Formats: sequence, C-alpha cells, structure tokens
Amino acid sequence: MARELTVSIDAMGGDAGPGVVISALQRSIQRHSNVHFLLHGKEDELHALLERNPRLKSRVTVRHAPGRVSMEDKPGHVLRRGRDTSMWHTIQSVKDKKADVAVSAGNTGALMALAMFQLGIIEGISRPAIATVWPTMRGQTVVLDCGANVSATADQLVDFAVMGSAFANAILGLERPSVGLLNVGSEEQKGNDAVKGAAHVLRGASLPMTFHGFVEGDDIAKGTVDVVVTDGFTGNVALKTAEGTAKLVAQFLRQSLRRSLLGRIGATIARGALTTLRRKLDPRASGGGIFLGLNGIVVKSHGGTDAMGFASALDTAIDMVKADINARIIADRSGIEAAMEAAAVT
Amino acid sequence: MARELTVSIDAMGGDAGPGVVISALQRSIQRHSNVHFLLHGKEDELHALLERNPRLKSRVTVRHAPGRVSMEDKPGHVLRRGRDTSMWHTIQSVKDKKADVAVSAGNTGALMALAMFQLGIIEGISRPAIATVWPTMRGQTVVLDCGANVSATADQLVDFAVMGSAFANAILGLERPSVGLLNVGSEEQKGNDAVKGAAHVLRGASLPMTFHGFVEGDDIAKGTVDVVVTDGFTGNVALKTAEGTAKLVAQFLRQSLRRSLLGRIGATIARGALTTLRRKLDPRASGGGIFLGLNGIVVKSHGGTDAMGFASALDTAIDMVKADINARIIADRSGIEAAMEAAAVT
Repeated sequence: MARELTVSIDAMGGDAGPGVVISALQRSIQRHSNVHFLLHGKEDELHALLERNPRLKSRVTVRHAPGRVSMEDKPGHVLRRGRDTSMWHTIQSVKDKKADVAVSAGNTGALMALAMFQLGIIEGISRPAIATVWPTMRGQTVVLDCGANVSATADQLVDFAVMGSAFANAILGLERPSVGLLNVGSEEQKGNDAVKGAAHVLRGASLPMTFHGFVEGDDIAKGTVDVVVTDGFTGNVALKTAEGTAKLVAQFLRQSLRRSLLGRIGATIARGALTTLRRKLDPRASGGGIFLGLNGIVVKSHGGTDAMGFASALDTAIDMVKADINARIIADRSGIEAAMEAAAVT
Repeated sequence: MARELTVSIDAMGGDAGPGVVISALQRSIQRHSNVHFLLHGKEDELHALLERNPRLKSRVTVRHAPGRVSMEDKPGHVLRRGRDTSMWHTIQSVKDKKADVAVSAGNTGALMALAMFQLGIIEGISRPAIATVWPTMRGQTVVLDCGANVSATADQLVDFAVMGSAFANAILGLERPSVGLLNVGSEEQKGNDAVKGAAHVLRGASLPMTFHGFVEGDDIAKGTVDVVVTDGFTGNVALKTAEGTAKLVAQFLRQSLRRSLLGRIGATIARGALTTLRRKLDPRASGGGIFLGLNGIVVKSHGGTDAMGFASALDTAIDMVKADINARIIADRSGIEAAMEAAAVT
C-alpha cells in the first residue's frame, strides 16, 4: 500500500463557508483512498458538520483555528495579525511536514503572502507564479503567471516555463510538454525585451520540454501549445478577459434564442447540449489557481466555488503531490542554470 | 450642403483583393452621400472592376500605384522601398490634404510605420495607439492600445485615455465617456508603476471624461466603462484571447449540439438565433483598428475582411472626420499638461 498522503485544508476560506468543503470531501474520499485530510477552522462548526457525515470522520482530523481571513483583508495585515487564522494554520501544517499540500478557497493575495512567508521560494527560482488550466479546442492548456506578479523579467519568464512544464507533466501527464511564450506576434523580432530574452534562453536550453517559440492570445484557446508562459499582469488580464468573453457569448446566445418562438423551442430541445457547454466552460472544473515555485505545494480554489470546484482543486493538489512536482522543478531549474548564465539575461 | 469629404483607400491591401473594396463601396455610397473616394492600386484592375459598377464611377477616382505591400513585408522594408505601393499612396493623399482619412486592410505594422513616417504624431502625444471597438453586455467599449506599442509608461497611458475618450465621443457619441485603466485588481494599491502613475494623473485632471479608476479583464465584456486603457502588449493579448475564446465557445456549442438528435433538431430550429449571435460577435462589424495620435486619421480594416467589414471601416473613418477627432485630442491633451507636470510622472 502506498504511503498515506495528507491534504491540509482551509475550511473557512471560500465565500460559501465550510459546508462546501465538507461536500467536496464526500466526493474526494471516494476518488482517493489513500488520502487523509487536515481541516483547519472553527472546531465546533466543523465537528457539527462532520456529525452529519459519519463516513468522513475516519478520514478527517479537525484542527481548531479561531480566526478567518476575509476577502477584503490586505496581505500585509494578514502577515502581521493572521497567526490565529485557518489560512495561516493550513500553510503551517505543510511547513511543519504534517501535510503534503495546502488547499484554500480564500483571499488569493493573502494566501500567496502567507505561502511565501512560511514556505519560502525554491532555491534558484526568483518569484513564484500562479498557474491555471484552460479548456481549449485540443484539450487543456496550462497558463502562467496568472497574477502572482505584476511584471516579469526574462529570467523569471524562463523560471515560469520550467515550472509550467513540470506542472503539465504532473497534471496532464505529458513527458515533454510544448511551451510557448505569449507575445504580440509569432515572429522572432516581435515583443518586449523580457519575452525576447526568455526566448533566447529557452531556445538554447536542454530541458524536458519542446520550446515552440512565441504564441499569441488566440493560441491559448486553439491549444497550440501545452504551456503558455507570460507575466502576471498579462496573464491575469487574459484569464479575466476570457472569462468575461465566455459569459458574454453565453448571454448573447440566450438573448438571441429568446427573441423568437422558434428560438425558444430550439433552446428547450437543445437544453442538454447547452448544459454540456456550460460544464465545459465552467471555471470551477479547472481546479483553481496553482501556486508554483514554493517549498511546498499550495492550491487556490475559486473564492465562489462550490463542492464540485473544491473537489477538483483537491484532485489537482493530490496529483501534484503524487507527481512530486517540486523535485522536477528543482532538477529542471538547475539544468537550465548554465543556459541562463551563458545568455546573461536579467 | 456640407463640404464634400474624401476617403483615401488602399484598394490592394486586404487578403481578398480589390473586389471586396468595390463591393464595400457599393454599400458605402448608399450610406454616405457627401463622400468621395480616392482608390489607390493597379489602374487596369480597378478600372475593370468599376466598368462593372457604373453607379460607383462618379463617386470614385482611381490613382495608379503599381506596388503592393504584402502581409509578410517588414515595416522597415516598406519604409525604405515602398514608395510605389498602394499603401504608401493612400497615406500620402492624407499628408497632401487630398483626402481627409485613409483606410487600408493591409499589413498593420507597415501601415503604422508609414502613417507615423508620413503624417507624424500629434504634438504632445508621445506614441500613437491602435483602438478597437468591442461588443459588450451594455453595448460597445473602446479598447486601446491594441498593439501599436509593446509597453507603455504612465504618461503614454494618460495619452491613450485622452485619445480613447475623444474616439468614444466621435464614434459612440458620448460627451463624457467613462474611462478605466486595465489592471490586475480594482483596488488603488494594485498594479505596476505605469498604471498607478497614470491613475494618479487621471484622478487629478480636469477632462471631458469620467475617470472610473481601475478595471479588470472581465470588465471589458461587462461594459463597465466606455473606454478601457492599457499598454499595447496587454491590449493585443486581451483582444486575441477574446477572439479565441469566442471561437472556442462557438465550437463547444456546435459539438454539444451535434452530440444528440435532440440537439441537432434544436440547433436547426434555433438557426436564426445562432446567426444573430454570430453577427453580434463578428469582428468584421467593429470597423477594424483605429490609429489614434497621428496628424491625420488612419483606419485599419481586418486583413481577412469582406465587403461588410470594409464598409464598416469606411463608416468609422467617415464618422471620425465628421467629429474632427484630432481637434478634440489636441485640446484635451493641452488641458491635461498641467496635471501631468504636477504629478511629474515619466
């Protein structure tokens, strides 16, 4: 039997409260037999929920944390005053090796600040990044950074390429993922200094990935590459623009269908297909944002997530531990050191 | 009777050749009675097309240009060697005051380079920008820069805000457009130095716009503001990501509908509604990319455009001339000078 794996969970993080976490655990214990869950939050509330779910009890340990990080709390405030919060305790368990991975649906900025403060960054990596998995015409594509940083140097983009390909290996099962740098054109001379410098290093590096070169915004949805690398500003704007566009198209479709009797009849008949579409585009199904580059694994589920979304974040967390993603990041990063020094990009 | 207005057209610019331009003109002469068209391109080809469209003849003058800029030509090459091209002649007519506005469906980079070289930049504006009009849940929103530059300083973002609001005034008819700066969060402390610096100036400036503050990627589709300001790198990625996402959703929908008999029946019945949806999302309907900040107006239609798209670009061009958009940009830019110097952003 494989070693039991432990997931540390911030039970108070999401907008909907611990009920969603408990429902997610009901799904997760069926999918993962060798996993134990450490649940951080208000003891009485969590015990009351577990009373009603006796099958969960043997798989879950409750750890009391009286405080809660709200969505409005500033990261600096949480760093100074957040020691009693469920989020702090959730990360602390990973730091203390009581758990293998941390999952929270709470405040992203605070979670990243706590994770950086408590776990530290992998040696050689200059900044952590947030990766997300997007649905595409060809399957799924990993995009990073989606907002951990507001800019990125060439060196940092190279780090993101290393981390993103390790993640694609762990989650999508790809041995040599293809990697593209997001740019305003696919020609070599296009772009700012950071993307040009990163392309120079990645072209010369010997890594377990296929460097595709530059890709453009529409290549994400096309699934042109397995991993799209960009700075956190551009990645965050692209992610939210895509979410907004998907909602806009859905709204236009509803409006168009409602406009005529035939449209309404057609929509009624096609309802099953429309539900399939909604599921495919559902950001909850993607497992949230994955923090890469830390000495420990942290997965951020959507703040407004439901049980399905949180269970999907748990799946991602467990897959990352099983794949030992950080070992691959460390190995690939040291493998690229020589290429970066040769290029001397900053 | 109002003064006749002249539109200078690159008849050889688009992928589909001059036939599309002639079809677009058939639509345009019906919509605009007081407009004359200068058509640059291969004389014999254009005359042959006009022979078949006698109603166009009195409204169109053909100017021979033997050369053609291809989609692959580098801007630098066109600047050095492109004097005989239809694109060069099209801009030249605006420079020589023979026309009020130039329209081309050709190579964007070459068109911007020629426009900057021949027309020059409005005094006080540091860089031109490309604006596009996006469909939103509330109507239409102007987004700029969509790719003229690969970065932007705070000062340049302020210029883009001035130019974008002048354009929203000219095209959407809004006296005081609301303007938002694209960022990774809406809180004041978020973002990079450029967006923070620009926000500081725009908050203190007295301009014919309402500065909304920061907006995020999903605010574009929501229509939160009339004008979204960003650097050319982020704007280009956002535009292409949105186009890719819209296509992805449409493909998922088709796949879902095809999967079942009921879905296929539903799709057949709802076909009219689906056509309406496609039209609403059609990038051809948006009038292309508008070059702002030059001493002359230049509109770039999509390279793969059809007659409907090119006619829409002509509409936009004509509206911009009628609104005397550059006079507003010059006035607003000098009005903001004091606020920029007070903030001393760079």
